[in-house]
Amino acid sequence: MSEYQYESVTPELLEALKAAAPGHVTYGDEVNEDFERDEMPIYGKVMPQVVVEATSTEEVAAVMKLCNEHHVPVTPRGAGTGLVGGAVPIEGGVLISTAKMNKILSYDTENMVVRVQAGVLLNQLADDAAKQGFLYPPDPGEKFATLGGNVSTNAGGMRAVKYGTTRDYVRAMTVVLPTGEILHLGASVSKSSSGYSLLNLMVGSEGTLGIVTELTLKLIPMPKEVVTLVVLFESLDDCISTVPKLMRSGLQPQALEFMEREIVRLSESYLERSTFPQTYQGSEINAYLLVTFDGDDEEQLSGMIERASEVVLDAGALDVLVADTAQMKKDAWAARSSFLEAIEANTKLLDECDVVVPVNEIAHFLTFVKSIAQDYTFEVKSFGHAGDGNLHIYTCSSDMELEEFRKQVDNFMEKVYAKATELGGQISGEHGIGHGKLPYLEKVAGPVSMRLMKGIKEVFDPNMILNPGKVCYKL
Amino acid sequence: MSEYQYESVTPELLEALKAAAPGHVTYGDEVNEDFERDEMPIYGKVMPQVVVEATSTEEVAAVMKLCNEHHVPVTPRGAGTGLVGGAVPIEGGVLISTAKMNKILSYDTENMVVRVQAGVLLNQLADDAAKQGFLYPPDPGEKFATLGGNVSTNAGGMRAVKYGTTRDYVRAMTVVLPTGEILHLGASVSKSSSGYSLLNLMVGSEGTLGIVTELTLKLIPMPKEVVTLVVLFESLDDCISTVPKLMRSGLQPQALEFMEREIVRLSESYLERSTFPQTYQGSEINAYLLVTFDGDDEEQLSGMIERASEVVLDAGALDVLVADTAQMKKDAWAARSSFLEAIEANTKLLDECDVVVPVNEIAHFLTFVKSIAQDYTFEVKSFGHAGDGNLHIYTCSSDMELEEFRKQVDNFMEKVYAKATELGGQISGEHGIGHGKLPYLEKVAGPVSMRLMKGIKEVFDPNMILNPGKVCYKL
Repeated sequence: MSEYQYESVTPELLEALKAAAPGHVTYGDEVNEDFERDEMPIYGKVMPQVVVEATSTEEVAAVMKLCNEHHVPVTPRGAGTGLVGGAVPIEGGVLISTAKMNKILSYDTENMVVRVQAGVLLNQLADDAAKQGFLYPPDPGEKFATLGGNVSTNAGGMRAVKYGTTRDYVRAMTVVLPTGEILHLGASVSKSSSGYSLLNLMVGSEGTLGIVTELTLKLIPMPKEVVTLVVLFESLDDCISTVPKLMRSGLQPQALEFMEREIVRLSESYLERSTFPQTYQGSEINAYLLVTFDGDDEEQLSGMIERASEVVLDAGALDVLVADTAQMKKDAWAARSSFLEAIEANTKLLDECDVVVPVNEIAHFLTFVKSIAQDYTFEVKSFGHAGDGNLHIYTCSSDMELEEFRKQVDNFMEKVYAKATELGGQISGEHGIGHGKLPYLEKVAGPVSMRLMKGIKEVFDPNMILNPGKVCYKL
Repeated sequence: MSEYQYESVTPELLEALKAAAPGHVTYGDEVNEDFERDEMPIYGKVMPQVVVEATSTEEVAAVMKLCNEHHVPVTPRGAGTGLVGGAVPIEGGVLISTAKMNKILSYDTENMVVRVQAGVLLNQLADDAAKQGFLYPPDPGEKFATLGGNVSTNAGGMRAVKYGTTRDYVRAMTVVLPTGEILHLGASVSKSSSGYSLLNLMVGSEGTLGIVTELTLKLIPMPKEVVTLVVLFESLDDCISTVPKLMRSGLQPQALEFMEREIVRLSESYLERSTFPQTYQGSEINAYLLVTFDGDDEEQLSGMIERASEVVLDAGALDVLVADTAQMKKDAWAARSSFLEAIEANTKLLDECDVVVPVNEIAHFLTFVKSIAQDYTFEVKSFGHAGDGNLHIYTCSSDMELEEFRKQVDNFMEKVYAKATELGGQISGEHGIGHGKLPYLEKVAGPVSMRLMKGIKEVFDPNMILNPGKVCYKL
């Protein structure tokens, strides 16, 4: 039994919740089934007793305060696009959705920041900022995630190789603590050395230390020109060993993705469109680099293309294709962006991890993964962000029994995580821990780190009611 | 009386400390007087009972463990160049200096990181990295600070406007906890979403949560070309209002400093060299922007100079001077870099703050500071990082009594901090809180943030012995 005592929502508390968030509370049979899980159903489905679709910081705070007083567990949720069970209400209780807090509040064009509610979707901000001449650089594959969710997992994405992860764009936030207190952290300015960085602690804490309700995010001027190169390789080894050379060149690609033959074909077949060549002058193409550069003018980009081509051809590439029209860029990136969808469409049971390894260890690591994959019944598919070593490894089966799949995946993941750690990596680059990856984090982070994390959790959440059993302690 | 009980170093403990760090322990009269204070003597001078000049993580850990067991306070110290009393051993006890842990351990050129001991000086790494073709971007004014100290205050500096602060370059660290446990945080990789970011919590915690002993820092390829522009203005208002325009242009200056007439003359007189023009076609020059751009080739930089000149001349600059020879760049930056030294040489009593305000509020803020400065006996001198709104405001007197100076400065600083906060700023951009700025942080951060910070401190340091009375709680 858990060391924590949680209470259920009583009829009296339900009435109090309805009064705190009038018109935004559903309960029992009324609750939409979407709220029982995130995008990775293998991490469980549990219905919350009550759902509050909050529309303001004050509503979130009032609900949180009531639940804290009554020791009722609360699970925060954005768009539910997570992959580690972080938004699954594993103890039932109340689920607070921020999805309806979806207003872009204001731009400060002189200081180049935007203030948004936490439920604004990534693509909603990206499109709107573009109209103002700005780029919001973080670019995770899932464009329908909320920005609050992105902050909670420190989401990375394609452009992290040049522009960094979500953490680097969070200037300030409003957060509701597990006690119901409202806290403003940070400022619109870029520098701070004003006490412990509670802001940075909150980023990546997966809704366990507070519920982010508002964000001030850094923007950059929209680069004027963008070009994508498709680089063809006969072998994965050549492809991967090109990456550190490109990074050392000083060229600063905006994105740098590697793709293996098999997953490219799967995605093309899913999209019913052939985008990438399969052979080059009689040689089979087994690996691709997809490289994007941005810059101020065509001339600068021409220079970059030329220098990049030299680097990759010297490193063993077969050829370089330049996607310089809008349609060609769109097609190339559409194929890359559909990997997860293509995998999902072709499999019944799915699990994944998103380890990070040093960029010069990617080939070594993938060779290891392929060699052990043979010992399991499921199929293994992988792709990833070559520029920062963040790899996505999928285990897929359409015919295994769930229990056997889980058992084998657990065994496989342990080996994968151990290898990534041995190579000096991290167990998650951008998806987080949730409750699905907690046992692995415990092994890798060790007891001292886990003790400190749990201690921090207790400081923020004395009753341990906010997103219980996630990230840093088991129930 | 303090709520905390601290013990003195007994003869028995002294023997145990000597055994733990043989040859590296001094005590009583042997202790070098430098260890009683940092660079800002107004924040107190207290001699430690014992100094340990540690040479390894293991020595730090052994000393820390003994002190924790005996409830003896420990103050960590790098080069002692701090400005807020952070390294003053206000409770006596043991001071652990990391200055002798000054080895650059290894470069990983493929992943572009360097591993160093925490006592390596900033200029030592900068010079060494340059020989390998790399730039370590953080560039605080004080080049003789240790990297451990830079990490502890999240030091910023001149190049933060393009490259960010120290936080952005810390990939991994070895840290000795107040309990004496050794913890490794982070990895050489750039992305992580693997539990609470203890690494980011440690950055900027000013040696209160642990003693950093080793760091893995991100490097970037050395930019091939660098050019500095000196932009002349008749008024400070025109000068400052140019800044957001330059930032919006997408040109990304590496550094962007503003300087007022008076401090430039002071610095030139201190250096006995005249560098900047004082008039332009009959107009008096009252403010300067010092702008540095870096890039890949001369052609790209020529384009940048041209575009930047257009922007600043449109915004009201009188003229733009291009410092494109090594000597001209050196002279221009030498004048800027000597501001603090020039002030120190000309004053007996000195205090300062390093608030941050939004870049479009700099002029507004400085006008406020000048207007209230008239109410005080001391002189006020200011300069700062225009690109990120981080301003350095100095209060200087050579004839006031200490007590009166302190009283007036306290009154002045309260108003300055309140104004910066009102404008959406932060009370320290890069110097930190130490114990000198603690009362101001309490006012600005508020009781909830202070409670959380102190709670975190207790999690890491149950006996509250590491750097007591700094950052987040008074003794």
